[in-house]
Amino acid sequence: MRLRIVLSRPSHPGNIGAAARAMRTMGLDDLALVAPRHFPDPDATAMAAGGADLLAAARVHSTLEAALAGCVLAAGFTARRRDLSHPAQSLREAAPEIVAAAQSSPVALVFGNETSGLSNEELARCQRLVTIPADPAYSSLNLAAAVQVACYELATSAASFDAPRGGVGSMATHDDLEGLYMHFETVAIASGYLDPEKPGRFMQRLRRLLARTGVEREEVKILRGLLAALEERARR
Amino acid sequence: MRLRIVLSRPSHPGNIGAAARAMRTMGLDDLALVAPRHFPDPDATAMAAGGADLLAAARVHSTLEAALAGCVLAAGFTARRRDLSHPAQSLREAAPEIVAAAQSSPVALVFGNETSGLSNEELARCQRLVTIPADPAYSSLNLAAAVQVACYELATSAASFDAPRGGVGSMATHDDLEGLYMHFETVAIASGYLDPEKPGRFMQRLRRLLARTGVEREEVKILRGLLAALEERARR
Repeated sequence: MRLRIVLSRPSHPGNIGAAARAMRTMGLDDLALVAPRHFPDPDATAMAAGGADLLAAARVHSTLEAALAGCVLAAGFTARRRDLSHPAQSLREAAPEIVAAAQSSPVALVFGNETSGLSNEELARCQRLVTIPADPAYSSLNLAAAVQVACYELATSAASFDAPRGGVGSMATHDDLEGLYMHFETVAIASGYLDPEKPGRFMQRLRRLLARTGVEREEVKILRGLLAALEERARR
Repeated sequence: MRLRIVLSRPSHPGNIGAAARAMRTMGLDDLALVAPRHFPDPDATAMAAGGADLLAAARVHSTLEAALAGCVLAAGFTARRRDLSHPAQSLREAAPEIVAAAQSSPVALVFGNETSGLSNEELARCQRLVTIPADPAYSSLNLAAAVQVACYELATSAASFDAPRGGVGSMATHDDLEGLYMHFETVAIASGYLDPEKPGRFMQRLRRLLARTGVEREEVKILRGLLAALEERARR
């Protein structure tokens, strides 16, 4: 995905570094800065963490125009305000178009100054206005937090990264499960808990519980081990 | 939405403050801290911005167990790792269940220490493991950035806040648009640009362009004003 993050007139170098880190976590590396107040700066470097290389490669421009060179689409990020010049979309609504355009050519995500946001002149250079829906009582996301949210939403929309499945073992097969149910039933009857003449809904409830959970092969082994030990004990 | 953010053993007070700000932007205010290294702290206050009240109201606990009191569900946030004890879901996959549960009773979103994440003991207290999908080459989101993304995803999933529509005027009606097209055609013919005997696809392309854009009533007025001025001029 060819996304360029453009930070226009950022005041705090720590935010530039934190934005670089945010980009790196979402697999992006094209950072452009327009007239940053302080850059390079040790605060930026300190906050970049794993995004340090990307920060070092950032291009600094004197105008937004120059930072947008080569982009087929520019999306300006703006907080809720009454004087929007064009209609704004929510980030989630805007994501499919941005992701589709960014497959072949660079798309810019443009963020304004921490205090004043994007100026009307800057907004006029953007073909889309995008808002991160927020509490109207306090809608001011930190600059790097807004960059993180934008990169997250677009990476998720593009399905850039798999969610890790964690340590999921191989799932139990139908036969594994039937074996487990029968084993439960045998033990429950042997224990006197389950009356085979009047079984009630015990087996049905057990099936429902385990079906809902999703049982791994290894777990079937453990449960049957326990059941076998209980049977053994009851026999003595 | 009754969401509680639980930060377990945070090292950097600045991250606690930034997390409070992130929560505030997404309309949340229930913050619990487990054994924070430094709290209260001026760095936390400085980073909280509009979330200062929420930070002041944060409860400090000595154990995760205590911080989870009253919660019907706890979702532990974890970066990709191979030794996950239970299967993890992506944040987006997990959102509907969390939002549904949080309608009636508190749901905890649990975040671990900046460096070490959640311990196995802490993870064992969580009924769900949730991951923010990230670049496997560098998947370490800043703690407050992870809180911002989580709160954003859940607020968006719950449709907590409308996206601002900005200054969208009332849209042009069918009649407005037909009037505009005819006006264009008249002027184009009068100018000699369009030959009524061989019109080609000019009008078709014009219709396609304006249909794609979505035209407001006010814009129809402006365009027809321009066309009228051009006609007037051509007549002189």
